[in-house]
Amino acid sequence: MSNISKKAKIGKNVKCGYCVKIADNVVIENNVTIGDYSLIGYSNEKKNSKKLLIKKGTKINSHSIIYENSEIGENSLIGHRVLIREKTIIENNVQIGSFSDIEGSCKISSYAKLHSNVHVGQNSLIMSYAWIFPYVILTNDPIPPSYIRKGPIIEPFAIVCTGSTVLPGKKIGFGSFVGANSLVNIDLKPEMLGTGNPFIIRGNINKIKIPNTKKNAYPWILRFQKDYPKNAKEIYLNLRKKYL
Amino acid sequence: MSNISKKAKIGKNVKCGYCVKIADNVVIENNVTIGDYSLIGYSNEKKNSKKLLIKKGTKINSHSIIYENSEIGENSLIGHRVLIREKTIIENNVQIGSFSDIEGSCKISSYAKLHSNVHVGQNSLIMSYAWIFPYVILTNDPIPPSYIRKGPIIEPFAIVCTGSTVLPGKKIGFGSFVGANSLVNIDLKPEMLGTGNPFIIRGNINKIKIPNTKKNAYPWILRFQKDYPKNAKEIYLNLRKKYL
Amino acid sequence: MSNISKKAKIGKNVKCGYCVKIADNVVIENNVTIGDYSLIGYSNEKKNSKKLLIKKGTKINSHSIIYENSEIGENSLIGHRVLIREKTIIENNVQIGSFSDIEGSCKISSYAKLHSNVHVGQNSLIMSYAWIFPYVILTNDPIPPSYIRKGPIIEPFAIVCTGSTVLPGKKIGFGSFVGANSLVNIDLKPEMLGTGNPFIIRGNINKIKIPNTKKNAYPWILRFQKDYPKNAKEIYLNLRKKYL
Repeated sequence: MSNISKKAKIGKNVKCGYCVKIADNVVIENNVTIGDYSLIGYSNEKKNSKKLLIKKGTKINSHSIIYENSEIGENSLIGHRVLIREKTIIENNVQIGSFSDIEGSCKISSYAKLHSNVHVGQNSLIMSYAWIFPYVILTNDPIPPSYIRKGPIIEPFAIVCTGSTVLPGKKIGFGSFVGANSLVNIDLKPEMLGTGNPFIIRGNINKIKIPNTKKNAYPWILRFQKDYPKNAKEIYLNLRKKYL
Repeated sequence: MSNISKKAKIGKNVKCGYCVKIADNVVIENNVTIGDYSLIGYSNEKKNSKKLLIKKGTKINSHSIIYENSEIGENSLIGHRVLIREKTIIENNVQIGSFSDIEGSCKISSYAKLHSNVHVGQNSLIMSYAWIFPYVILTNDPIPPSYIRKGPIIEPFAIVCTGSTVLPGKKIGFGSFVGANSLVNIDLKPEMLGTGNPFIIRGNINKIKIPNTKKNAYPWILRFQKDYPKNAKEIYLNLRKKYL
Repeated sequence: MSNISKKAKIGKNVKCGYCVKIADNVVIENNVTIGDYSLIGYSNEKKNSKKLLIKKGTKINSHSIIYENSEIGENSLIGHRVLIREKTIIENNVQIGSFSDIEGSCKISSYAKLHSNVHVGQNSLIMSYAWIFPYVILTNDPIPPSYIRKGPIIEPFAIVCTGSTVLPGKKIGFGSFVGANSLVNIDLKPEMLGTGNPFIIRGNINKIKIPNTKKNAYPWILRFQKDYPKNAKEIYLNLRKKYL
């Protein structure tokens, strides 16, 4: 029992859950799964908006809300009760955890992973292979309230740990590491480690060791490749030349 | 396909979304919009409770839950998956962001704005024109767990930035500014600036400048009036005489 | 109008709300209440999974999601829009607040109480009579991302206040107290007080007094027994001999 607009374009082998609502302005490619109680292509009463495109192989879990005028790439995984607003571009193979709040007008690049309950303010840029952990907040207004929307930039392979807030426009560098519960009020350069509130740069990421060993824990892609393409390490090493 | 009690009093031009449930003890005035999958007038098995009143022109977005024995004023905007418990008084022209958790027995005055994922503990008071940013938590129990419920007071035009926690009974003064990720454990006087954990008072709000200028960013109402009444500046200046 | 599998085993006097979905692999005992829009026994496309068991007298509020291969004890109370993943063991008389995110492979023991919006990472252990306040995060990966899942241990009668993050594997001792917005990066011994980011141990819990008195506020069970068994104080005093 669902409510699927006849104007929506739905591909082959699309699985729609219970009590799903799909609005007019939606294109869903083949092999997509839409979870129960999800609201797909929600329109905020604006006219002539662009469509919502959900590309092939993507799975959206239950109780999620996705606005029109957005795009979700192939083989992505969207958690339970996620909210994705207008003008969000999500590339392929992205994961967005349950309870996350993607405020729109932002881009999340391929192979980026957001854990549960991440808040992405407008005009944020999350680049490929970045990891954002639970309750991280990307803010965008330096003098709230204002008309300014200057989101953070999370460069490829960067790690932002649980409970951290990134202040407007701050750049988390390539392969860098932000510790838990940090308040990031300055840019963090590539492969550097920063923690705390106030935020303090602690040195190179090689300071962090694998527990009970003397081995470097970072760059993480050299020891953890689950669900990534086979050449992810080489992608890291090639990008490293560009960023460092 | 909705589930609307015949005992509920529903005004003219009320738009009800898909899979909406409206319980008996509800009065909805004209021109209200109720989003999909919302549960309106939820009763926690108590008897003889007061009704839920939703005044004219208010919009409630999808997946929201509003208990009976509350009141939501005119032309207010309630986000997606908001939870509002019993004995909440929301005045006119209030905005409450998605994922917010209003625990009941509290008051949110006219033109106050809560962004996403704000937690308002019982007995909190949020006054007119206050701004509460994402993941702010208003607590109420000084020796948890206890029977004490002593909520914070957020005075008019005050700003509480993202990720801050306000401890029980603390007062955020008129037009003051609490920086991101603060732990507010003392009162903040009107038009003062405080930040951090531990919380430190940094001086007058005129320390904060508009980026790349030498102009004061605060009082914010002097530079930002979007969606406010035309006389909002005068309201500020008049209240200023009272509070300072 | 609900969607209840005929393969599910449903006891007597089970109240099912509006638009509830109950999957095949579910056993619900007598006198259970399932709130509107809840998804019970969700399967992540795995085969031959164990069932979800919800024991007698438990209430699950609206918009909740509970995976199969979990167990929820008797007379427990699950809030609105809670997410409970696979391999979660919840014992009897547990409370889990709205918006909480229980990531699975964890145990929450009898009479533990989680307030709203608590995040419990995999392999966490929350023991009896513990209290976890809003926006507390129990993390489990010391070098994220990795395959390690080493959750915190919250010992009986411990208090973790609002907005705190507990780092992987840290132990919050019996009857101890973690202040709001702490980042717990070391173990806290029984009946000790710790606060802050960085986390600092402040001494014995007897430093915290009931407001406007010279009486000790902790151990809390000596002054607050709402909804607990009559012998809760004795349980505390007996366990105290073991832990201290």
